Amino acid sequence: MRVLLGSGGIRTEEQVKLYHDETANHFQGVDEVLFIPYAGADHDYYLERMQNFSAQSGIKLVGIHQSSDPIKAVEEAQGIYVGGGNTFLLTRDLHNNGLIESIRKRVRAEMPYMGVSAGSNVAGPTMQTTNDMPIVAPPSLETLNIVPFQINPHFFSGQTWKKNGDTFTPHHGETRIDRLREFHEHNQTPVLGLSEGTYLRWDGEVGLLIGGDATVFQSGKEPTIHASKTKFDGNLLPIN
Amino acid sequence: MRVLLGSGGIRTEEQVKLYHDETANHFQGVDEVLFIPYAGADHDYYLERMQNFSAQSGIKLVGIHQSSDPIKAVEEAQGIYVGGGNTFLLTRDLHNNGLIESIRKRVRAEMPYMGVSAGSNVAGPTMQTTNDMPIVAPPSLETLNIVPFQINPHFFSGQTWKKNGDTFTPHHGETRIDRLREFHEHNQTPVLGLSEGTYLRWDGEVGLLIGGDATVFQSGKEPTIHASKTKFDGNLLPIN
Repeated sequence: MRVLLGSGGIRTEEQVKLYHDETANHFQGVDEVLFIPYAGADHDYYLERMQNFSAQSGIKLVGIHQSSDPIKAVEEAQGIYVGGGNTFLLTRDLHNNGLIESIRKRVRAEMPYMGVSAGSNVAGPTMQTTNDMPIVAPPSLETLNIVPFQINPHFFSGQTWKKNGDTFTPHHGETRIDRLREFHEHNQTPVLGLSEGTYLRWDGEVGLLIGGDATVFQSGKEPTIHASKTKFDGNLLPIN
Repeated sequence: MRVLLGSGGIRTEEQVKLYHDETANHFQGVDEVLFIPYAGADHDYYLERMQNFSAQSGIKLVGIHQSSDPIKAVEEAQGIYVGGGNTFLLTRDLHNNGLIESIRKRVRAEMPYMGVSAGSNVAGPTMQTTNDMPIVAPPSLETLNIVPFQINPHFFSGQTWKKNGDTFTPHHGETRIDRLREFHEHNQTPVLGLSEGTYLRWDGEVGLLIGGDATVFQSGKEPTIHASKTKFDGNLLPIN
């Protein structure tokens, strides 16, 4: 398989360069990539913005929402890119357009898939490790299951801080680590917490971490931090 | 109606005192309050912790999970307190135990209801303005609808900051304001963003803000900030 999952939160010059390098490498030999903008509310606007950004990667995007038959668009696509936004919205529209099974089938048959943020969340068995607000109700939280673990994008450890003027004060909501521990009180699937600006390349058996560190959460165990270039198996156990 | 909704995030001495004052005032004349610990994973532990904390308010809590018939426990309760934790877990168990309608009926018949954090989220028509992770899938996102607006607890405006050692760096996930604007791209119900440590008293027609400010979000309008002691109607419009 050819799966590339990004955390999002790309801001520095170095992060932007890595984004374009990874995207170009991932879609090498693909003339046209099918873009799925369902995580945003305004599909035309989102497509245009991403077309401009992806031109720098040498990638041509076409919008699935401009096709009268989205399932056929997936069946005929040379590559798929699922953008970020709200994961509940994205998951609802993937289900309502009947795309879960068709995307899964194509990706398992070696079509390149790239997801960023919400687009990485839906690559796992469920979207249950999203950070997003449930602004709509999808018919199911089950997603593409093209990687056998869960993704938590925009991961960071520690407390949230608020800034008022020049003063920082702590926020007392649950930390990301609290939330993922709670996830494992009810679920067994391991979770990869991807720091902002990082990627996982997944070939169907081995995952390779690119651009920064990631934190692995296993049910009943302490989280572990892994550096860029770490390789993982499908249980998120590091491979030497 | 006698509804008291808290944001949570109570830490300072002043905030703790306000919590006990508001709780004592709200449950005046009530011998025993039915505590609903469903937002936590360990109901016995959670009950015990809250029994100890609430003793300082002069309140005696009994756990709904210790009753063989939770619907009957609600029907016979003199007051209900719904604690914080994970709103998806809480909503799932309220539905699965058939409690949505029975709690709503009792609260509409003047039984005092107090909710904190997740317990405030479920007081609105839906839990769709929670900050929590969907660690379980409730059968529906609809909730008690004992207040006609949505609650966003632990509200803060502005960006999230991370702390590494002594250095603060910005996090690039959506802000709370982004998330609530996205909510209003798909929903019309107004949202009350309660700052940590604040409360709303709701009598069925008028809401009174206590202990700090709150931010009101209306579909298609800019958010507005309101000081402690502001009164609101059911559309979250300030009352002079």
